[in-house]
Amino acid sequence: MATDQAESEQRSDPYERLEDRITRITNVGHAAGILRWDQEVVMPEEGTPARAQQLSALSSISHELLTADETGELLEELESETLPEERQAVVREVRRQYDRETSVPRELIEEISETTANAHPTWKQAKEEDDFEHFAPTLEKLIELKREYANHIDPDADPYAVLFADYEPYLDLETAERVLERLRDELVPLIDAVQNSDVDLATDTFAGEFDDDDQEALARDVLDALGYDWGRGRLDTAPHPFSSGTQFDARVTTRFEEDDLLGSLTSTIHEFGHANYTLGLSDEGYGTPLGDSRDLTVHESQSRLWENHVGRSRPFWEQFLPTVRDRVSELEGATPEDAYEAANQVYDDNLIRVEADELTYHLHIVIRFEIERDLLSGDLEVDDVPEVWNDKYEEYLGVRPETDAEGCLQDIHWSHGSFGYFPTYSLGSVLAAQLYAAAEDDLGNLDDDIRAGDFDDLNGWLRENVHRHGKRYTTPELIERATGEEFTADYFLDYVSEKYGDLYELEGY
Amino acid sequence: MATDQAESEQRSDPYERLEDRITRITNVGHAAGILRWDQEVVMPEEGTPARAQQLSALSSISHELLTADETGELLEELESETLPEERQAVVREVRRQYDRETSVPRELIEEISETTANAHPTWKQAKEEDDFEHFAPTLEKLIELKREYANHIDPDADPYAVLFADYEPYLDLETAERVLERLRDELVPLIDAVQNSDVDLATDTFAGEFDDDDQEALARDVLDALGYDWGRGRLDTAPHPFSSGTQFDARVTTRFEEDDLLGSLTSTIHEFGHANYTLGLSDEGYGTPLGDSRDLTVHESQSRLWENHVGRSRPFWEQFLPTVRDRVSELEGATPEDAYEAANQVYDDNLIRVEADELTYHLHIVIRFEIERDLLSGDLEVDDVPEVWNDKYEEYLGVRPETDAEGCLQDIHWSHGSFGYFPTYSLGSVLAAQLYAAAEDDLGNLDDDIRAGDFDDLNGWLRENVHRHGKRYTTPELIERATGEEFTADYFLDYVSEKYGDLYELEGY
Repeated sequence: MATDQAESEQRSDPYERLEDRITRITNVGHAAGILRWDQEVVMPEEGTPARAQQLSALSSISHELLTADETGELLEELESETLPEERQAVVREVRRQYDRETSVPRELIEEISETTANAHPTWKQAKEEDDFEHFAPTLEKLIELKREYANHIDPDADPYAVLFADYEPYLDLETAERVLERLRDELVPLIDAVQNSDVDLATDTFAGEFDDDDQEALARDVLDALGYDWGRGRLDTAPHPFSSGTQFDARVTTRFEEDDLLGSLTSTIHEFGHANYTLGLSDEGYGTPLGDSRDLTVHESQSRLWENHVGRSRPFWEQFLPTVRDRVSELEGATPEDAYEAANQVYDDNLIRVEADELTYHLHIVIRFEIERDLLSGDLEVDDVPEVWNDKYEEYLGVRPETDAEGCLQDIHWSHGSFGYFPTYSLGSVLAAQLYAAAEDDLGNLDDDIRAGDFDDLNGWLRENVHRHGKRYTTPELIERATGEEFTADYFLDYVSEKYGDLYELEGY
Repeated sequence: MATDQAESEQRSDPYERLEDRITRITNVGHAAGILRWDQEVVMPEEGTPARAQQLSALSSISHELLTADETGELLEELESETLPEERQAVVREVRRQYDRETSVPRELIEEISETTANAHPTWKQAKEEDDFEHFAPTLEKLIELKREYANHIDPDADPYAVLFADYEPYLDLETAERVLERLRDELVPLIDAVQNSDVDLATDTFAGEFDDDDQEALARDVLDALGYDWGRGRLDTAPHPFSSGTQFDARVTTRFEEDDLLGSLTSTIHEFGHANYTLGLSDEGYGTPLGDSRDLTVHESQSRLWENHVGRSRPFWEQFLPTVRDRVSELEGATPEDAYEAANQVYDDNLIRVEADELTYHLHIVIRFEIERDLLSGDLEVDDVPEVWNDKYEEYLGVRPETDAEGCLQDIHWSHGSFGYFPTYSLGSVLAAQLYAAAEDDLGNLDDDIRAGDFDDLNGWLRENVHRHGKRYTTPELIERATGEEFTADYFLDYVSEKYGDLYELEGY
C-alpha cells in the first residue's frame, strides 16, 4: 500500500520520503493513463466534459506534489549524500523533472494548455478546408508560448534544444541534428537509386477488402506469434493506435481499414514493441524512475525494432504468411516473398508521413525538423511555412504537395504545441538498428529464430540490456552498455543499404 | 478546467474555495471509479498489484484534501454566514464528511483496510470449505475494529447506528428498525398464505439454455426499451453486476448464466435503475454534492423501482415479451402472463438472498439486520452466529440451512467490514413503492404507458422529483418533497399484498 503523506513525513530517511512522494506521483500518473485509455477506447461519446475535469485534477495534483518545497528540500539533502547508484539515478531523474516543472510558471502551463485545447479544432478545420491561414495565427501563438516556456527552463539555451529535451532529455540536439543530417545526405541518393531501379516489387499482395473480424483475428494471431503476454495486456481498437500502461498491464490498440490489412498488421506489431518494452520493466521498480521506461528515443527504438527488423523481414513472412493465408482466402496464392516485397515497397510519390516506407520516412522527419528549428529560432516566419515545406519536399523527395492539407497541415503535433517531438521518431529507428545489430552480435544471426517463430532470445536480450533498467541509466549510457558503442547511425544505414540494395538490385549498395 | 489549488487559495470567496476543494476531491473519486470499473470489466488479470497502489494513492489524496485544516477553516467561516439554500446544502454535506473523516485516526482506517483485504480470501475459503470457524476470528476482529471506528465518530451513540449512517446518513436507525419490524410482521403471514395457496404459477417460462450473444442482444434490447442513453453509457459484463459513473457517463454491467435468462434481464433492469438515477443528476452540479446522488436508500429505490414496479409488472411483459420471442426460439409459445408469473414466483425453500423473490427477500435482510445489531451491541457472540442464523431462517422462512456456506457465510459484505449496509436494500424497496405510488398519484395509472413502452412520464417525474436534486435535500426532505409524506412502508405493503394476493388468489389480501 502506498504510504500516507502524513505518515511519510514522519519517516526519517530522506530517500524513503522522496520515494514515497515520487511513487504517489507515479500512481497518479498511471491513473491518468487509464483514464486516457478509457477515453480513447471505451468511453461513451458524451463523457468528455467530466473526463477533462478528472484529468485536469490529477494533473494539478501531480504538479503540486512534484513542485512542493518538500521535494526540493529532499533533493538537496540527498544530493549532498553518497547514495548507492540506483538511488542516485532516482534522484537525478526526479531533480530533472523538479527543475523543469518548478521553473515554468503555472499560468504559462495553463495558457499553453488552453491554447492547445483550442488549437486542435482550429488545425482540424484548416486541414479540412486546406486553409493554412486559418491555422497560422494559432501556430504563431503556440511558438511564442513554447519559446517563453523554454526560456523559463533555460534562458541561455537554444529554445528548440530545450523543447527537444522534453521528449529526449539525454541525447542532445546536436546529436539529433548530426544524425538527421547524415540520414538526409545518405538516404536522398539511396532513394534516388531505388526510384531509378528497374525492379518491380510485388505491390498487390495484400490487396482486397477484409472485414474487422478477420483483421482482428489476424492482429491477435500476430500478437500471439510475437509472444504478447495476454495476462498483462489486451488488444482494442482506437482511431489513432497507441499503447499504454505499466509492467503489470500494458495494452495495445490498433485500427482496421477495410483495404489496408498490411497497415493494421504492421501497426499492431509497432504497438506491440512499445507494450513489450513496458512489460519488461522491473516489477520492483514500479512507482519510481527505476521501473519507468526511458524516453521517446528508446521507446520508439522498441516499436521500430519489432515493426521493421522483425515484422518487415523475410523470415517473419516465411513464418507468419501461412497464418494469414488460413484466415483470408484473398491471400491464398501469395508467397512469403510477395509479402516481404509488399511490406518493403518504396513509394515515389508519397506526400504523407504516416504512409511512408522505411526510407522516405526519415526525409519527412528531416523536413519537419528543419522547419521547426528555424521557426523556433525566428529564422523562418510562420507565413512562409507552406512554401518552404513544399520546396523541401520537392528537393528531398521529388514530390511537391498540391495542397497544404497534404503538406504542412497533415500532422497533428503542432496543434498540440509539440515542437521537437518528430526527431525522436527517426532517432528511434536509428537506435533500433543499432540494438538489433548488437543483439545479433551477441546471439548470432536471428533469421532462423524468426523463421521458427522463436523470439525468446531476442526478447531476452532486450529485457536484459534495455527494458529491465528502466531509467537507471541515461539514454547514452544505456546505449553504450547495451551495444558497446556510442549512439550511431552506421547500423541503420548499413541495414537499409543492404536491404533495399538487395530488394531493388542496386549497384554499389 | 479544475482550478489549481494555489490559485484557489488566492480566491477570496470562501465558498468558492470550498467548492474548488470539493470539486477536486470529487474528480479524484470519479477517477477512482473509472479505475474500479476498469478492474472489474477490462483489466488484464495480472494488473492487480499496480491497480491496488493506484487506488490507494487516490484514496489517500482524497482523504488528505478533505481533512486538511483549510477545509475545516472554510467550513467554520461559511457556517457563520447566511448562505443561499443550495450552498447551505453543500456546506452541510461537506461538514458531515469532514467530521467523520477527521474523527477517525488514519491508522485505524488503514488497519481496517488491511484487515478487510485479508478477510476476503479468508471468507472465500471458509465458504468454499463450509467452515465458519475459519472465518470467525476475522469476523470478530472486524466487529471490534468497526466498533472502535464508530466510537471515534460518536462515543455516545449506538455503534451500529453510526455504521448504518455510513450508508444511509439521514434516515436514522430507529426508522430502519421500525420499517424492518413491520416488514417482518406483515410479510411472514403473507408468505405463509402464499405457500399455502393452491395456485401454481408458470415457473418454466424462461427455461432453456441461452448463449451469451442472445443474452447480450436481449440485455441491449431491454436497455433500449427503457430508454437508456447510450451516448452517456455502455453495457459490459462483470462477475458481480454493478453500475457506476457520473451524469456524463453512467455505465451498466450485467452477467449471463446459460440457464438464467430471466436473471440476466432483471439484473440488467436493476442496474439500469441505478445508472438512470446517475444520468438524471444535474450537469451544472457536477463536482459538488449538488451533482452527486443521495445515499444507498435512494439509490436502491431507483434500481428496485425499475426492476420490480416496471420490470416485474404485467404490462412490461406484454410490451417486452415479443422482443424476447423474436430473439430466442425457446420462448416461442410463451405468453406475457407466463412471463409475468415466472418473474414473480415466490420460493418456499430458498436459502439464498440474491436468489430471493420480492417477498422473502426482506426476511433475508431482517435476519442479517437483527444479527448485525446484536453482534455490534455485544448481545450476540460471533461463535453463536451460525445457530442463531439457522434458527431465524427456520422461524421466518420455514427453511433451515444445512450448511453455513448456504447460511451465514453466503454474503460477501461482512468480509468487507460492511455492517449496516443490508438494511438499505429493504429501505430502497420500500421507498421505491412510495415513489411509484406518488408518481401514479401525479401522473395517473402508468400501466398503459408501460404497455406502450413509453417511460417518458415516469422518468420525467423521477428526474424532476428525485434525480435532479442530487444531495440538495436530506433523504427525509427529499422523500417528503417528492411524495408529500414521511417515509412509510404502507405503499410497499399495499403493493405486495395486492400483487401477490392477486397472483396467488389469497383471501383477505
